[in-house]
Amino acid sequence: MINNLVRLGKMSWEEFTKLSTKNRAPYLSDDSDRFVHLIYAQQFNRDNLEYIGQLATKIRMMAKSKEGSDFLSTLLSDKRAMLYFTQPSTRTFLSFMAACQILGMKVAEVRDATTSSEYKGESAEDSVRVFSSYSDLIVMRTKLKGLAERMAWLLSNSKRLVPIINAGSGKDQHPTQALLDIYTLQRSFEDINGIDGKHIVFVGDLLRGRTVRSLAFLLGNYNDVKMTFVAPDAFQIGSDILEYLDKKGIQYDLSQNFKSVIPTADAIYMTRVQDEWDNEEGESAKVDISNFWFGDEELKLLQKHAVIMHPLPRREEISTSVDQDKRAVYWRQMRNGMWVRAALIANIFAVDTEILNFSE
Amino acid sequence: MINNLVRLGKMSWEEFTKLSTKNRAPYLSDDSDRFVHLIYAQQFNRDNLEYIGQLATKIRMMAKSKEGSDFLSTLLSDKRAMLYFTQPSTRTFLSFMAACQILGMKVAEVRDATTSSEYKGESAEDSVRVFSSYSDLIVMRTKLKGLAERMAWLLSNSKRLVPIINAGSGKDQHPTQALLDIYTLQRSFEDINGIDGKHIVFVGDLLRGRTVRSLAFLLGNYNDVKMTFVAPDAFQIGSDILEYLDKKGIQYDLSQNFKSVIPTADAIYMTRVQDEWDNEEGESAKVDISNFWFGDEELKLLQKHAVIMHPLPRREEISTSVDQDKRAVYWRQMRNGMWVRAALIANIFAVDTEILNFSE
Amino acid sequence: MINNLVRLGKMSWEEFTKLSTKNRAPYLSDDSDRFVHLIYAQQFNRDNLEYIGQLATKIRMMAKSKEGSDFLSTLLSDKRAMLYFTQPSTRTFLSFMAACQILGMKVAEVRDATTSSEYKGESAEDSVRVFSSYSDLIVMRTKLKGLAERMAWLLSNSKRLVPIINAGSGKDQHPTQALLDIYTLQRSFEDINGIDGKHIVFVGDLLRGRTVRSLAFLLGNYNDVKMTFVAPDAFQIGSDILEYLDKKGIQYDLSQNFKSVIPTADAIYMTRVQDEWDNEEGESAKVDISNFWFGDEELKLLQKHAVIMHPLPRREEISTSVDQDKRAVYWRQMRNGMWVRAALIANIFAVDTEILNFSE
Repeated sequence: MINNLVRLGKMSWEEFTKLSTKNRAPYLSDDSDRFVHLIYAQQFNRDNLEYIGQLATKIRMMAKSKEGSDFLSTLLSDKRAMLYFTQPSTRTFLSFMAACQILGMKVAEVRDATTSSEYKGESAEDSVRVFSSYSDLIVMRTKLKGLAERMAWLLSNSKRLVPIINAGSGKDQHPTQALLDIYTLQRSFEDINGIDGKHIVFVGDLLRGRTVRSLAFLLGNYNDVKMTFVAPDAFQIGSDILEYLDKKGIQYDLSQNFKSVIPTADAIYMTRVQDEWDNEEGESAKVDISNFWFGDEELKLLQKHAVIMHPLPRREEISTSVDQDKRAVYWRQMRNGMWVRAALIANIFAVDTEILNFSE
Repeated sequence: MINNLVRLGKMSWEEFTKLSTKNRAPYLSDDSDRFVHLIYAQQFNRDNLEYIGQLATKIRMMAKSKEGSDFLSTLLSDKRAMLYFTQPSTRTFLSFMAACQILGMKVAEVRDATTSSEYKGESAEDSVRVFSSYSDLIVMRTKLKGLAERMAWLLSNSKRLVPIINAGSGKDQHPTQALLDIYTLQRSFEDINGIDGKHIVFVGDLLRGRTVRSLAFLLGNYNDVKMTFVAPDAFQIGSDILEYLDKKGIQYDLSQNFKSVIPTADAIYMTRVQDEWDNEEGESAKVDISNFWFGDEELKLLQKHAVIMHPLPRREEISTSVDQDKRAVYWRQMRNGMWVRAALIANIFAVDTEILNFSE
Repeated sequence: MINNLVRLGKMSWEEFTKLSTKNRAPYLSDDSDRFVHLIYAQQFNRDNLEYIGQLATKIRMMAKSKEGSDFLSTLLSDKRAMLYFTQPSTRTFLSFMAACQILGMKVAEVRDATTSSEYKGESAEDSVRVFSSYSDLIVMRTKLKGLAERMAWLLSNSKRLVPIINAGSGKDQHPTQALLDIYTLQRSFEDINGIDGKHIVFVGDLLRGRTVRSLAFLLGNYNDVKMTFVAPDAFQIGSDILEYLDKKGIQYDLSQNFKSVIPTADAIYMTRVQDEWDNEEGESAKVDISNFWFGDEELKLLQKHAVIMHPLPRREEISTSVDQDKRAVYWRQMRNGMWVRAALIANIFAVDTEILNFSE
């Protein structure tokens, strides 16, 4: 499946890690730009974002019929995936599980945080490599910073290349989350010229949410996107993001007046307060966030074609009365995660052509 | 699969919950009386009990051959089930797992009790709805009273109907347990005119066992059944059940003389002392239950066609020497749970006709 | 599948347990020497070791192609396996999981140590028997000494024979571990006349490692094997093994000079210090083991055709710089475990002929 033209296998760990993240990215694909491993969001560009989106849509459509669904299940019926989730995330786990099942993969899991250190003195690398013995793909979520990358290098330099997908490492990268947000925007705007030229409004705790940061970065791949960051001072977006947008020449605004921004928005991306990052004093509780909630009144101000997104879980920031509105796409957004992850795995194992050629 | 004629989706939560449990039941089926959700034992009537039993028997027979088994596995190969078991029950879990596997469903699980409250401030409804994004069926066991029912309503009123099966909620309803007991009786008496007219003897802790209560209620659907409740005073059946039987005109006896009852029994339903419901003083330990045990002597008194049932686990109330007797059907009873659960799921997803029409 | 000529079902538990382990072995196979249960390493002899090895190799070759792999997946698609692992071992668990998946079995698991004692007063036998209701095979790892054997007898004497595979019980037997070590030797020497006449060198903590003891016993089935046990005095192999080798007329040496032994070795079997068996004083820390490590210098002394094995996990006893050498077969050894376990299960369910007859 995975062809021999793997660049990473020709490089020492020292050479590799001297490169910037952006420059490491090509080494994780093969010479035909197929993903071998997915470790960083920096591996995405407009071309592969569009391609994965197209593939996800085809998979989603095929899955509507039993015939299409059963065909998908034959594609990787000879492969076993290992979901190595020593850092727990039930949602990401279940989304990848479903993605693997859609393609007919057999799945095994390691979820116990103690498993990776089960044996005193064994290195994390050895431990993951043992698990790789039984499988053809490792989806990996761990607190150990850099382990996914290290395993990608190690397995690319072993007798048995097993692809690694990073499913989130600590506060760090979680590339498939950004992918599903982009796909939700692609899908929402598919009849109105795609993401180019759209106005995306981010609302809530923009400082500490990983998803907002990643999505803002990836939107840099599109033309004439405008972004507005709506948040109280204490939670406003970080200056590193703004510097990046300045450098890319992307137009943005900062605002505290949510209602004034809604009428021009094409997408509203709501977020919750990330108080798990609070210090001991619990600074979040002192911030009044109630002006940054979305309810029935805000719904009236929203354009007909616009969408409301949320990475979930939500608290009070979106009223449940909004759930029934067809512009509320946050449940669909979760489900999109499953489709893009299936598309990504199909790409890695080179069964994408079979999918795109399928017709009932 | 699930047709559009879903009554529940046309009704507000307030209207729905004003109804008695009995009157809510029809709203959980569609207009052709197919189960959409299974939440209460009150959804069962003689017709659907017989039908599920017939379907379970066909599935059981088909599963004896590789050809039949492989055919069953194709029926729901395009569906994913979520076993949401935040209240643990390994046995019920494994029984539903096997039922899903028999029909070729792909299965994912949420078993960690902390998962549902993984995110501070997220509602239980949102949490389950996220899990529903990845699946086509939710089998749900939770301590949260009424959650299964609430999710059934919520998902019937969403863009994506996902059926809910209640696999036990707290001290409350556990409808598939009652179903397997009825099926075990159907199967045991299939050559002798079915359940009508039979004498069912309940023995042990009849006050606190949920299974005895449910089965006694469901037996009300059959003609000329006689029940005897054999227990020490402290554990005798509750007066609410007796009132129900009186109202239905069902004949019953109370007894403390086990041996005198055995010779006329068609089924003996043994139960263990449910001391997990004891108060701090441990009142169960003070009750002498040894006269309500079944051993070799009791076996001699039992009719040839009669059966001994037990919901398991057992303690001393049935001697292991009885296990080898062909009238001891408690292991088969466990296995019957798997068959009726498969039949129920087949009914929900409308693959029952394909099953009943199968011939090798 | 499993034929009726099961010897164990004709014997009482008392008769059975009066026999020596060696004499019990035949009762766990059927009249055509097919395994019904696998409980002890004493069930292996040269014939069935060679046969399982041959079957494992065919499965391994078939799994290289999608066609072969998909064919294997049809063989036991009508069977469900229960992985009952109340004594944790992630690696053994995953290896059996993969083995079952290779043959298309559906898998369910019981891994929580508290599950087997979930119900106060229920016997372990009843508990496992409940789980057997839902499955066609039980792979069992438990701390309860003798439970696997007892269940094998019990289920052979029930209406529904479910095979038991012992996946390790306490400090006791772990027969499939020994099987994978033998298979790794068979495979390593397949072009040079097999295991007969080879020199196997065991290194490290030979006193407390279960794998070394089992492998030494099984090597007694081969001709003209020579063994050298290289260890500090404190960790040297037990006298019971040496007595066994003496009785079998097998040639062996004890040594503390690792380097002098390497040049004549055909296989080096490295092991880690098993300090989990230490007493409170931690006697292992007092032993200098550094002369018993394998690194670049040792590699230079090793014959071209020889192999380095390790049951893993490793600590410092093998340098990671050795990993890239083609004689380092310890990762392959893990993977071999998966192949021999699949072969064993194929043998039990009598699909071995279909496998051996397969040609693309």
